[in-house]
Amino acid sequence: MRVIITGAGGFVGQALAKKFIEVSPDAELVLADVQAPPNPTTSTKVECIGADLTKAEVREALIDRSPDAVYILHGIMSSGAEANLELGLSVNFDSVRGLLDTIRVKKPGTKVVFTSSCAVFGRAAVKNVATETDIVPMPESSYGTQKLMVEFLLNDYSRRGFIDGRAVRLPTVFVRAGAPTAAASSFVSGIVREPVHGQESELPVDLNIGIWLVSPRTLVHNLVHAMNVPAEKFGYFRTVLLPGYTATSGEILEALEKVAGKETRALVKEKRDENIERIVLSWPGKYDTSRAKELGFADDVGLERTIKDFIASTK
Amino acid sequence: MRVIITGAGGFVGQALAKKFIEVSPDAELVLADVQAPPNPTTSTKVECIGADLTKAEVREALIDRSPDAVYILHGIMSSGAEANLELGLSVNFDSVRGLLDTIRVKKPGTKVVFTSSCAVFGRAAVKNVATETDIVPMPESSYGTQKLMVEFLLNDYSRRGFIDGRAVRLPTVFVRAGAPTAAASSFVSGIVREPVHGQESELPVDLNIGIWLVSPRTLVHNLVHAMNVPAEKFGYFRTVLLPGYTATSGEILEALEKVAGKETRALVKEKRDENIERIVLSWPGKYDTSRAKELGFADDVGLERTIKDFIASTK
Ligand SMILES: NC(=O)c1ccc[n+]([C@@H]2O[C@H](COP(=O)([O-])OP(=O)(O)OC[C@H]3O[C@@H](n4cnc5c(N)ncnc54)[C@H](O)[C@@H]3O)[C@@H](O)[C@H]2O)c1
Ligand SMILES: NC(=O)c1ccc[n+]([C@@H]2O[C@H](COP(=O)([O-])OP(=O)(O)OC[C@H]3O[C@@H](n4cnc5c(N)ncnc54)[C@H](O)[C@@H]3O)[C@@H](O)[C@H]2O)c1
Repeated sequence: MRVIITGAGGFVGQALAKKFIEVSPDAELVLADVQAPPNPTTSTKVECIGADLTKAEVREALIDRSPDAVYILHGIMSSGAEANLELGLSVNFDSVRGLLDTIRVKKPGTKVVFTSSCAVFGRAAVKNVATETDIVPMPESSYGTQKLMVEFLLNDYSRRGFIDGRAVRLPTVFVRAGAPTAAASSFVSGIVREPVHGQESELPVDLNIGIWLVSPRTLVHNLVHAMNVPAEKFGYFRTVLLPGYTATSGEILEALEKVAGKETRALVKEKRDENIERIVLSWPGKYDTSRAKELGFADDVGLERTIKDFIASTK
Repeated sequence: MRVIITGAGGFVGQALAKKFIEVSPDAELVLADVQAPPNPTTSTKVECIGADLTKAEVREALIDRSPDAVYILHGIMSSGAEANLELGLSVNFDSVRGLLDTIRVKKPGTKVVFTSSCAVFGRAAVKNVATETDIVPMPESSYGTQKLMVEFLLNDYSRRGFIDGRAVRLPTVFVRAGAPTAAASSFVSGIVREPVHGQESELPVDLNIGIWLVSPRTLVHNLVHAMNVPAEKFGYFRTVLLPGYTATSGEILEALEKVAGKETRALVKEKRDENIERIVLSWPGKYDTSRAKELGFADDVGLERTIKDFIASTK
C-alpha cells in the first residue's frame, strides 16, 4: 500500500505518519511538505520530500507515484487565510482542487481524505447542536469558506466516480505540541503545554466557555479509519464531523491539576482578552457526531488521558 | 447608473434588460454574452458586446467600464455542466470567480447580483420545506455544486467588503419562451409553450408532481429589487431564495385550459418518461421564502397571469 500525506511536516501530518506505520508497518509512505519534513518513524519505507503543491508540475510528479490513498492535510491556517486572501485561496482551495484534478486524470478512483474544519460553521450554529446534515454551514472566515468549497468539490468528484473522497471536519486539536500558533484557539493547548514545560501561561477567556476538542490520539486513529470506511457507507454525501468532546477551560485546568499537580496548574493566570473571547464564543460548542459513529469512527479518550499522553510525549 | 449584465443573450438576461430600462429609462446598460446579444429595448444607452468571460482580459475590459452594479447571469446549464465537467467549472465557477476578483481589484464595493439555483439542494431537502438557513445544501449535480461554491465565495468577499454581493437562488422559470432546452425541467414550459403555438407537447411526469416555479414577470421584478436591498439587511449571509410557487402539471394544464381553451390543452399528451420523473422527484417541491419577503422581494403572480403574459409575448 502506497499512501501520500501532504502537509506532512505539520502537527497532524507528523502524528498521522507515526500512527500509520504503527498500524501498517509495511506501508510505503510519502511525506510531502514545502520543505522535506522529518520522518517521525523508524521505517525505511517512509520517504520525505519537498513539494510546494501550489505548482502543477509538483502535483503531477506526486501523483505519478501512483498512490492508493492521499491524505490532503496541507494548508494555511485560519489567521493566515484571513490575513492574506490570495495565499489562502491559492493553498487551501486551488492547490487542493489541482491535486483532486491530477488524481482524477492520472489515478481515478483513488481514496482521498481531506481535513476540513468546524470553521465551516458560523454563528448560526452556536445556538444549536451542530451536525453535518441539519445545520447549514455559513462560514465567517475565509479559511472556513475555502475548506467548504473543497468539501463540495470533493463530494461532486466522488459522486461522479472520479475519486473516492472523504472530507473530515476536525475539532480543535488539544494538546498541540510545539510553539503557540496564531490561531485564536492557541491558548487551549497553551494552558496545558506551557505549564507542563514549567512555564507560565495566560487564559484569555472565561473558565466556563466550552470548546470542541479532539485529542491527537483519537484524531490519528480516526484519520486512519477514514480511509477504511467503505465508500457506500458515506452514501451521496462525503462529509463527516469527526468525534470530539466539549470541555471548558475550567475542566481542562481541573484535569491538569489532577494529572500534573497544583503547582503546575498554578502557572496558568487568568487574563481576559475580549477579542479572543468574542471569537471563541462565535464557535459552536456542541456537536452531534452520530454520523461519525455510524461510520465506525471512535469516540475521544477525553481530558485526562490526553494530558497524560502529552506529558509522556515530552519525555 | 451603469449596469453590466453578463449572459445577457440568455432568456433571463434579455427579460431583465427590458425590465431594467422600463424601470430606469436612463440607465446605461452593457449587455455582454459570448456573441453580442440583441438589444431587447429601444434605449440608445444599451450597448451590446461580445465577451467570452472565461478570458481574463475580457473580464478586465468589462470592469474597466466602471459599473455601479454587475448582474452575473452567464453560465452553462445543468445538463451541460453534467456532460462536461471542465466546461462547467470553467464557466460556472472560474469565470465568475475571475469576475469577482476583477471587481474587487478594479472597482471594490461594486454591487453584484449572482443568479444561483435551487439545484444547490439535493434529495435531503425533498422531505422538508427548504429554506436558506435550515436546510443544508447537498447538491447532486455539478451545476448545483458550482453555483454553491460561487455563493460561498461571494459571501466571503462581501464579508470582507471587497464586493457587495447578493446571491439569489432561482426556481425553474416558467413559461420560458424559445426552443426546448436540454434541462429535465424543459417540459414544464413545453406543455404551455408548444400548445400555445398550436403544436403537440408531451408530459413526461405524473400530473400530481409539484414543481417550484417562478414567472418571468416576478423574476425580473425581483432581480431589479436584488440590487436595491440595503446591504445591512442581508446581515452576514448573502444568499436568498427568490419567491416562487409550487404547481403540479395538472394545475398548469387546468390554467392553460382556462386561459387558452380546451383545444389548446388537448395538444398535451401524457407520455411517461421514468428518467425525467425520477430527476423531477429528486427536487424539493416546497420552499419557505420568508427571508425573501423580509428583504422586500415580491410574491409571484401565479399560473394564469403567467400564461396570459406568455400568450401576449407571442403576439
Ligand atoms: N490542528 C487543528 O486544530 C485543526 C483543526 C481543524 C482542521 N485542521 C486541518 O488539518 C490539517 C492539518 O493541520 P495541522 O494542525 O497539522 O496544520 P499545520 O499548520 O501544522 O500543517 C500544515 C502544513 O501544510 C504545509 N503547507 C502549507 N502550504 C503548503 C504548500 N503550498 N505545499 C505543501 N505544503 C504546504 C505547511 O508547511 C505545514 O507543514 C490542515 O488542513 C488544517 O486546516 C486542523
Ligand atoms: N432559467 C432557469 O430556470 C434558471 C433557474 C435557476 C438558475 N438560473 C440561472 O440564471 C442565469 C440565467 O439563466 P438563463 O435561463 O437566462 O440561461 P441561458 O442559458 O438562457 O443564458 C445563459 C447565457 O450565458 C452565456 N454564456 C455561456 N458561457 C459564457 C461565457 N463564457 N461568457 C459569456 N457568456 C456566456 C450563454 O451564451 C447564454 O446566453 C444562469 O446563471 C442560470 O444558471 C436559471
